Amino acid sequence: MKTYRHNVVVHWGDTDPAKIVFYPNYFEWFDQSARLLWDSVGLDWDTLARRYGVTGLPIVEAKAKFIAPSRFRDEIVVESAITRWNEKTFEVTHTVLNAGKRAVEGYEIRVWTKKREDDPSRIQAAPIPPEIPKVFD
Amino acid sequence: MKTYRHNVVVHWGDTDPAKIVFYPNYFEWFDQSARLLWDSVGLDWDTLARRYGVTGLPIVEAKAKFIAPSRFRDEIVVESAITRWNEKTFEVTHTVLNAGKRAVEGYEIRVWTKKREDDPSRIQAAPIPPEIPKVFD
Amino acid sequence: MKTYRHNVVVHWGDTDPAKIVFYPNYFEWFDQSARLLWDSVGLDWDTLARRYGVTGLPIVEAKAKFIAPSRFRDEIVVESAITRWNEKTFEVTHTVLNAGKRAVEGYEIRVWTKKREDDPSRIQAAPIPPEIPKVFD
Amino acid sequence: MKTYRHNVVVHWGDTDPAKIVFYPNYFEWFDQSARLLWDSVGLDWDTLARRYGVTGLPIVEAKAKFIAPSRFRDEIVVESAITRWNEKTFEVTHTVLNAGKRAVEGYEIRVWTKKREDDPSRIQAAPIPPEIPKVFD
Repeated sequence: MKTYRHNVVVHWGDTDPAKIVFYPNYFEWFDQSARLLWDSVGLDWDTLARRYGVTGLPIVEAKAKFIAPSRFRDEIVVESAITRWNEKTFEVTHTVLNAGKRAVEGYEIRVWTKKREDDPSRIQAAPIPPEIPKVFD
Repeated sequence: MKTYRHNVVVHWGDTDPAKIVFYPNYFEWFDQSARLLWDSVGLDWDTLARRYGVTGLPIVEAKAKFIAPSRFRDEIVVESAITRWNEKTFEVTHTVLNAGKRAVEGYEIRVWTKKREDDPSRIQAAPIPPEIPKVFD
Repeated sequence: MKTYRHNVVVHWGDTDPAKIVFYPNYFEWFDQSARLLWDSVGLDWDTLARRYGVTGLPIVEAKAKFIAPSRFRDEIVVESAITRWNEKTFEVTHTVLNAGKRAVEGYEIRVWTKKREDDPSRIQAAPIPPEIPKVFD
Repeated sequence: MKTYRHNVVVHWGDTDPAKIVFYPNYFEWFDQSARLLWDSVGLDWDTLARRYGVTGLPIVEAKAKFIAPSRFRDEIVVESAITRWNEKTFEVTHTVLNAGKRAVEGYEIRVWTKKREDDPSRIQAAPIPPEIPKVFD
């Protein structure tokens, strides 16, 4: 299973008065890592649009468990892999490691979308082509 | 059940090239609304520290389902209430309404914490005093 | 001279480990207030596009002087006015007041832009119509 | 003159509906690069506190000129150097290069601070020791 390792340095502005990472930042890093995972297999969003008419992989659900705090200067790794493929959606699992230990665990569920035939200004969920999951094997 | 209604205007910088709110922002608004909910019952964090020795209500879990996108200029409301009290944790449920319709649903689980007696530089989960949940009835 | 007063509550996530506002946030609030100023005179960006073919008022310069820090829970006001009109640019002056005292002073210079006739995918600076400054008198 | 080169990848969430970097992010990258510059000469903030009693290098002024936009996926470099030393302040000049071309130019003025002797809860500007500028030669 293809796993992307997204290296993130925790900067001063990412932390709060409790001197730990302000938690919405983890979701920002999840989002970055999900895109970089697709890029890493040659399926960046422009390619998806051109080849499959995909209009983005919008998020429908995101969750995180915060196990241990990270602090200014910490160098963390977001490990991301697609752990589940449904008909029109898929689940990206993210694990944040800090000094080798699990700091945050989470996932995002994203949808494969296309323009609606009756109204191209709108999008709808569409079946994920069978060759796509194989690229991530 | 006490419910706090946090009014949020979606600004240009909150939205992304798809012209919808970049999703980590919703968690930032959840965090704001959770604090404002405690403030609204007279239990802001300074009061909690002074009266109960509480060292913050750190988050251990957060989740959101994204039902409909919000856009630049939308005026949304984050409705927040504590829907579950456990021994040392509680769950804040957040519902984002956009033009009266559910746009996002989510929750945060937060912990009641105190300084550790053996090492005051560290914190530990502590039992929530029984009078606290009643304040939110 | 039309002045817009943008009320901003400083949230926990806006502040850093020094317990003061992380300074890039002030520029985010400047940007919000500049747009709200245009909205307040009935010239929101959609109207500018429709009526004048304007493709946005992109920023070319921004500056701030930080006089006094603001902290979690502070309720500040960003007062914004257009203090100078040039042929194709204008200057928005922003003053942040905290408890009535000047906390930050700054400005943004923005450009009036149109699509280029030879290449509509690109934009160019264009003369500001003479009736525009009068709206802000 | 010591120059720090801070490599930044422009992520989706850094850009706005105009598909360019939302400008306050540049100041966030300036702030990161200023700190990394001090780290790179062995004078991180903890060392400054321990060795000189310095309580941070708070910002008093920041400015940027936006020459060319940057977009999602661009890999930019923030080049930072201290270009001026005053008695109690110094100026960090930042140049953002995108594909080798100047995209943004700016500076930050920061203050050397110590705790006030009459009230250690407050800080005051203090003279920069003469050996400090030499470290950046």
